[in-house]
Amino acid sequence: MAEQNFSYQQLFNFTKTVFQKIGCSEEHASIAAESLLSADLRGVDSHGVARLSGYVRLWEAKRVNATPNIKVIHETPSTAVVDGDSGLGLVVAPFAMKIAIEKAKQVGTGWVSVQNSNHFGIAAHHAMMALQYDMIGMAMTNASPLVAPTFSIDRMLGTNPICVVAPADKEPAFVADLATTTAANGKLEILQRKNLPTPDGWVQDKDGITSNDPHILKKGGALLPLGGDRDHGSHKGYALGAVVDIFSALLSGANYAPWVPPFPAYVPMPAQQPGKGIGHFLGAMRIDAFRPADEFKKHMDHWIQGFRNCKTIPGEEKVLVPGDPEREMEAERMKDGISLLDVVVKDLKEVGNKFGIEL
Amino acid sequence: MAEQNFSYQQLFNFTKTVFQKIGCSEEHASIAAESLLSADLRGVDSHGVARLSGYVRLWEAKRVNATPNIKVIHETPSTAVVDGDSGLGLVVAPFAMKIAIEKAKQVGTGWVSVQNSNHFGIAAHHAMMALQYDMIGMAMTNASPLVAPTFSIDRMLGTNPICVVAPADKEPAFVADLATTTAANGKLEILQRKNLPTPDGWVQDKDGITSNDPHILKKGGALLPLGGDRDHGSHKGYALGAVVDIFSALLSGANYAPWVPPFPAYVPMPAQQPGKGIGHFLGAMRIDAFRPADEFKKHMDHWIQGFRNCKTIPGEEKVLVPGDPEREMEAERMKDGISLLDVVVKDLKEVGNKFGIEL
Repeated sequence: MAEQNFSYQQLFNFTKTVFQKIGCSEEHASIAAESLLSADLRGVDSHGVARLSGYVRLWEAKRVNATPNIKVIHETPSTAVVDGDSGLGLVVAPFAMKIAIEKAKQVGTGWVSVQNSNHFGIAAHHAMMALQYDMIGMAMTNASPLVAPTFSIDRMLGTNPICVVAPADKEPAFVADLATTTAANGKLEILQRKNLPTPDGWVQDKDGITSNDPHILKKGGALLPLGGDRDHGSHKGYALGAVVDIFSALLSGANYAPWVPPFPAYVPMPAQQPGKGIGHFLGAMRIDAFRPADEFKKHMDHWIQGFRNCKTIPGEEKVLVPGDPEREMEAERMKDGISLLDVVVKDLKEVGNKFGIEL
Repeated sequence: MAEQNFSYQQLFNFTKTVFQKIGCSEEHASIAAESLLSADLRGVDSHGVARLSGYVRLWEAKRVNATPNIKVIHETPSTAVVDGDSGLGLVVAPFAMKIAIEKAKQVGTGWVSVQNSNHFGIAAHHAMMALQYDMIGMAMTNASPLVAPTFSIDRMLGTNPICVVAPADKEPAFVADLATTTAANGKLEILQRKNLPTPDGWVQDKDGITSNDPHILKKGGALLPLGGDRDHGSHKGYALGAVVDIFSALLSGANYAPWVPPFPAYVPMPAQQPGKGIGHFLGAMRIDAFRPADEFKKHMDHWIQGFRNCKTIPGEEKVLVPGDPEREMEAERMKDGISLLDVVVKDLKEVGNKFGIEL
């Protein structure tokens, strides 16, 4: 498929201007563009500018509030609940993460559950805000239902990602960011474009029969929890996705399970709404609330080097540490630019035309 | 295989007496017996009295201290590090969980990382201590290395379980307790006894080739992270196991990665010891640090009922909620007793003979 290359700055300026055009303040537009573009930089193409038009359509459908009054509605020394006021998750999540970090500074850890938000891009971007303060960072979000729990044909959970990051000393930080499904939706989209079959254990059809059709979600099928089937531990992936839902939505008062609002603006809202918007959960733990940060970070280096030095299975060059591929991609794309598929470029140009901005 | 049936009380009394005979105080012996037996009650037979002789052998090898001075060595309002003084994890973990709960009462959440401990039985037992206080409970532990990270042939992580529990109102609590491997070691042991092949994605041989031999761990093989292989998300299971290791050991100062002490006393200690003993991580979050507990619990009921009412895939009767099978097993075994394999009974009788106690 044909691609075009853009510099990070070029895409950032365009994205920020689009967010300003829908009414975001300059500050919010800047935060939102940075959140969104972090996905493109890290190689999570499904969650980056390819989604910009989707956010605009949500705003057009009045499901995104461009000038939200984001606020804390309940708190204790180590916790808070944030009401995102239907703002962009790209802005609401960093707001909540800052509160988690402030609380961690005060009492050792901070935990913020968020209601009334929208999709927040990639979890790693928010969790990684903790690293500069020598803290462990965590971020989770629920999402619209695409995943069938073990033994079910109904879609009950989103791909509900969990991200945990931890600083190291000379080594780069540990960054684990994973959908609680066998494969994230973005990986499915790659196979859809190429019309290639999905491996076993990724999806099932509308009757709950295992499938290899990458288009099966459009035919009533579902993604499968990490593990794929019961014999391979899908009940564990299901349980982890459920934990994300409980922390993000049951604790905050957001919608949960099959009642989470869909990302595509053309999909009708669920008939039942047990909460407000979608939910996130952000956490920060100060390392020196446990032990001196330099001690921890030196041991993290030792830990990381242990894994890098593992003997590999046949055909593989090296054992990776969580975060390695995304960090390498970020360095490369910051230097050489970000390649976008023609179809994404066309979509961005249409968004630009709508607001009289050139890409 | 032949089995014999025992009442919970009978096994509890025996186990408690054994722990007293190795020198535990009555209080510690009682806590340890309750922790250990909770596994048998919940159907996690691999982690219950079947392991009692293993704990005794660790004590004989002077790797378990029966009279530990368990203490907090560092703390902030929401965190603590506990030194288990080489005590039984079965006693150290409940001590640490109590501190997490006390801190949650004070500042909303409590997080305790533990060094210098030993195997703590099943994670659910400790996490569930939070439920009676309307708190979310969490428990993790690292363990001796049996798991090869994605692309590796070296065993670098334990089966490192994660447990998260949340209270509901009329419905029973949500209890997710999962090893971060495709299959826990206990499931492998069942196939070993029956000499049945393991499904694909559970284990690999010493050269990193996928295997179906249930005895492969004794031949230099390894368990695989949840997901099984890269295409099925094993890098996610690996990342989750790594998070457990970081929270349990890097934060506390325990041993980590391949340097975690082995459970079998006959296996030599690793040459390198970057920390002390094995590590755990316990957490408690007060529900009403986020929203009123009765509101949360009513929504949990709604959430749980949503999953129970899912349409099932062909051949399955119902969709389960995490914790369902173990709770049903507990009710059954409390009433009808606990069946132990003859080989386990023989092992217990030998322990009894050693101390002049009858089973």
